Amino acid sequence: MAELPVWFSPLTPLQFLRRSARVFANRTAVVHGEQRYSYAEFAERVNRLAWALKRAGIQPGDRVAYICPNTPAMLEGHFGVPLAGAAIVPINVRLSSDEIAYILNHSGARILVLDTEFSRLVEPVRGRLERLERIVLVRDTEAPSALEGDEYEAFLRTGDTTEPEWTLGDEGDTISINYTSGTTGRPKGAMMHHRGAYLNALGEALETRLWSDSVYLWTLPMFHCNGWCFTWATIAVGAANVCLRKVEPARVWQLIEQEGVTHFNGAPTVMISLLNDPAAKTAKPLRKLTICVAGAPPSPTLIGQLEAIGAEVIHVYGLTETYGPHTVSEWQREWDTLPAEERARLKARQGVAYIIADPVRVVDDQDRDVPCDGQTMGEVLMRGNNVMTGYFENPQATAEAFRGGWFHSGDLAVMDPQGYIELRDRKKDIIISGGENISTIEVERAIYQHPAVLEVAVIAIPDEKWGEVPKAFVVPKEGMSLTEAELIAFLRERLAHFKVPKAIEFGPLPKTSTGKIQKFILREKEWQGYEKRIH
Amino acid sequence: MAELPVWFSPLTPLQFLRRSARVFANRTAVVHGEQRYSYAEFAERVNRLAWALKRAGIQPGDRVAYICPNTPAMLEGHFGVPLAGAAIVPINVRLSSDEIAYILNHSGARILVLDTEFSRLVEPVRGRLERLERIVLVRDTEAPSALEGDEYEAFLRTGDTTEPEWTLGDEGDTISINYTSGTTGRPKGAMMHHRGAYLNALGEALETRLWSDSVYLWTLPMFHCNGWCFTWATIAVGAANVCLRKVEPARVWQLIEQEGVTHFNGAPTVMISLLNDPAAKTAKPLRKLTICVAGAPPSPTLIGQLEAIGAEVIHVYGLTETYGPHTVSEWQREWDTLPAEERARLKARQGVAYIIADPVRVVDDQDRDVPCDGQTMGEVLMRGNNVMTGYFENPQATAEAFRGGWFHSGDLAVMDPQGYIELRDRKKDIIISGGENISTIEVERAIYQHPAVLEVAVIAIPDEKWGEVPKAFVVPKEGMSLTEAELIAFLRERLAHFKVPKAIEFGPLPKTSTGKIQKFILREKEWQGYEKRIH
Repeated sequence: MAELPVWFSPLTPLQFLRRSARVFANRTAVVHGEQRYSYAEFAERVNRLAWALKRAGIQPGDRVAYICPNTPAMLEGHFGVPLAGAAIVPINVRLSSDEIAYILNHSGARILVLDTEFSRLVEPVRGRLERLERIVLVRDTEAPSALEGDEYEAFLRTGDTTEPEWTLGDEGDTISINYTSGTTGRPKGAMMHHRGAYLNALGEALETRLWSDSVYLWTLPMFHCNGWCFTWATIAVGAANVCLRKVEPARVWQLIEQEGVTHFNGAPTVMISLLNDPAAKTAKPLRKLTICVAGAPPSPTLIGQLEAIGAEVIHVYGLTETYGPHTVSEWQREWDTLPAEERARLKARQGVAYIIADPVRVVDDQDRDVPCDGQTMGEVLMRGNNVMTGYFENPQATAEAFRGGWFHSGDLAVMDPQGYIELRDRKKDIIISGGENISTIEVERAIYQHPAVLEVAVIAIPDEKWGEVPKAFVVPKEGMSLTEAELIAFLRERLAHFKVPKAIEFGPLPKTSTGKIQKFILREKEWQGYEKRIH
Repeated sequence: MAELPVWFSPLTPLQFLRRSARVFANRTAVVHGEQRYSYAEFAERVNRLAWALKRAGIQPGDRVAYICPNTPAMLEGHFGVPLAGAAIVPINVRLSSDEIAYILNHSGARILVLDTEFSRLVEPVRGRLERLERIVLVRDTEAPSALEGDEYEAFLRTGDTTEPEWTLGDEGDTISINYTSGTTGRPKGAMMHHRGAYLNALGEALETRLWSDSVYLWTLPMFHCNGWCFTWATIAVGAANVCLRKVEPARVWQLIEQEGVTHFNGAPTVMISLLNDPAAKTAKPLRKLTICVAGAPPSPTLIGQLEAIGAEVIHVYGLTETYGPHTVSEWQREWDTLPAEERARLKARQGVAYIIADPVRVVDDQDRDVPCDGQTMGEVLMRGNNVMTGYFENPQATAEAFRGGWFHSGDLAVMDPQGYIELRDRKKDIIISGGENISTIEVERAIYQHPAVLEVAVIAIPDEKWGEVPKAFVVPKEGMSLTEAELIAFLRERLAHFKVPKAIEFGPLPKTSTGKIQKFILREKEWQGYEKRIH
């Protein structure tokens, strides 16, 4: 770094580990069942990984893919891969073998680090992975693998414990390629840069008051936007990471008590499943909990339930292309004294850009800002340091997303005079019925007010007269009964009649690995035989 | 900014105000006696200032000087001046007219914003200020001014309330030039860049847990390293700023209660004067206090006293050239259970670099790292994003300070295996007695252990036999008596005999405006007629 000016140091999460490895050498960095690594041990493992990758031929600019749940290996990859100069490609473990093959081939990953539990996803397509040279198997469970590969711990032993020399060509160098779970066409690889990863990690620490005495529980998958950058943020501040292979509510409550957890994150559906578990009734968190929710607005009921167990709820919003959370429903202390319902309504908004982000815009079809009246819907645009550099080897999709110098989120929202946005729909989810826009979120919110409703998803279905009309898919609460007629009567008192669903279906909802409801699966069924609206 | 990549936004504190002006529009930004400005009002005043400066002919790259105590005008200058594309030059109000004339001429400030209380400093030298075109007078008190100038509020009215367009050529552009209170030669103007101001402000917010519900009291002068970047940090998070023209202990305690203060900063001497005021006995802080101390290591006694009033003490260290605080005595929760004396000893160390800073080094005369044994003394070196770009129009001093690609602090310290540094002396303060190094800080710490000692400064004085020997200047606590013989006997039990001062003088100590003891004044007297050791 001798050629850099004295006053310039490139922004990269690698600086965080360098600092914490020394300052917090004896503190716990990672907890995984009975396993515990101090920061010094964690850094040694990361260094070994970087050396092992380099010795296996990984060059600056290469890609190393990961198919792992939230284990130490996955966290190590977030530092060891960039330390070797490469980009990590964290792959969603809920994808199909076909999708995984596509991502491995498209990213050109030369090495795959694979948890043996998910070996079955790769086995059927191994022959089609033309660019993959080597598999490193993480045996964290008894699950066998039919694949040929190095054992992870043995692979680590081929590396040295000292930090390899590294330099960054540019702060815009790629640290991670995160494939979007595209519901249409092939997944696109959003390229995360070192500068954004560094700044967004600091942003997470600031917005969630994460500090060196924090204990972070990994309910959110690390493969999802690098765990919203908490992979880097926890290490930056010197917090403890409590790993978790899957979200089993009883286990979550046990860890919260046992490890003194202070922070965890997830979609509202994850929180609902935690709260509805019998263990929630007897759980006694030792410390104050800070819980970030995203992926869908938390309902007033959910916020109330989480606050009732003493948790602070932070509502954030963002996309894979924006390092995960980009806006936060920034709380104003003047609101503390408002009635619970009103506080929940304010918190359910997606809010304002993070301190480290540029302000977001809401624009019409011609990219003109809509009035900040809390009424006029438009598309949310972002730009700034926590926006991806583009889609990997997809200049066309990049140009389309970046048209006019702004990233187009595809989310529809309104903005209030203070700049708080509130999502109304995905651009592709909005229902256009007889020329009227119907926000599926607005309809869902009305349905959530019914005491017998656990979860709901509203989509457009084809209608000869109106073009589209709303249909609701409802999961009733356990032991409660609800009929279509009852719910429709309930809604007619709360919504304009054209917004009331024309049909209601009861049953479980299809979800992504991160707990997001997959409306496209519901839509596919309803729109079979139609040209329009299949995404 | 259309030409910038979508994923890049320059790091500058101007982004902070843009965000907070909107998000926290109705929240209190500034309190000054009866005056209160919301964030919207504060932003309007800043915008007016920027427009007024532009209309007065200020061009990008120009300098605007400030001689003001901690008033709203001074805080406005930290945003309005860079918003006009210029650099602020905050001048210490305790300097002599000669020094002020030098700084105004050297910086080439075209406009001076002057609080009328300090008009007397400028009046005698007005005729020598060749480059100064205009004075803007802040009438915050009844103090008159004999100078010709615009009235500040009228000047603001010549500007518009909307944010002027601004772009940053480079993140390394100068936002502030801070003249060091050089004890030798002429003051040097350390150039602060936008990138460093942005990152160090985030660093302050992280390290001190400053947030939107914080209330920051301005006990630390804003002209001192831009108030350690808290000028920018408070606005970044949306905190309230409570202004204070001077540190009058009774007033400080009153404001702490009345405004619900959560944070304030200063040198240990400032804290000692606050704690020794009668008002300290009856003060009831409403909220938890977080107090940063720097400038000298806080004694165990001081830390104990501050903790006794429920305050969290954070010990930080840095220099004008490093945006103020650069290291923090990072607390490890394992230390919570140690005896008070041991905790204080750990906290009195200067610690490790901020999260946003590069690690510091401690080196010998050939710039080789000394062993991290907590014993071997060497000079502290820094580099990274919170180091100045250089001394304004002084390439020679810059090259000297930056030799080998690192900033040379001139401070002597030891480093422990975890990278915590502990200052032992200014390079120029160290006493060399018969070939032995004597750390004046070590001797001072021993003297502080005597219960009758309020304050102390130890310097080298000339000695025919040993070259130099230590002498102590002691301020006893009010109502307590102490003799030279008593103190020397006390010290002989605690220090190697060659370290025990050969002379002790009782009386008040000369101090800078920020409460730092001016050892050079003590030295000047003692070394009159000698060539050596006059700094």
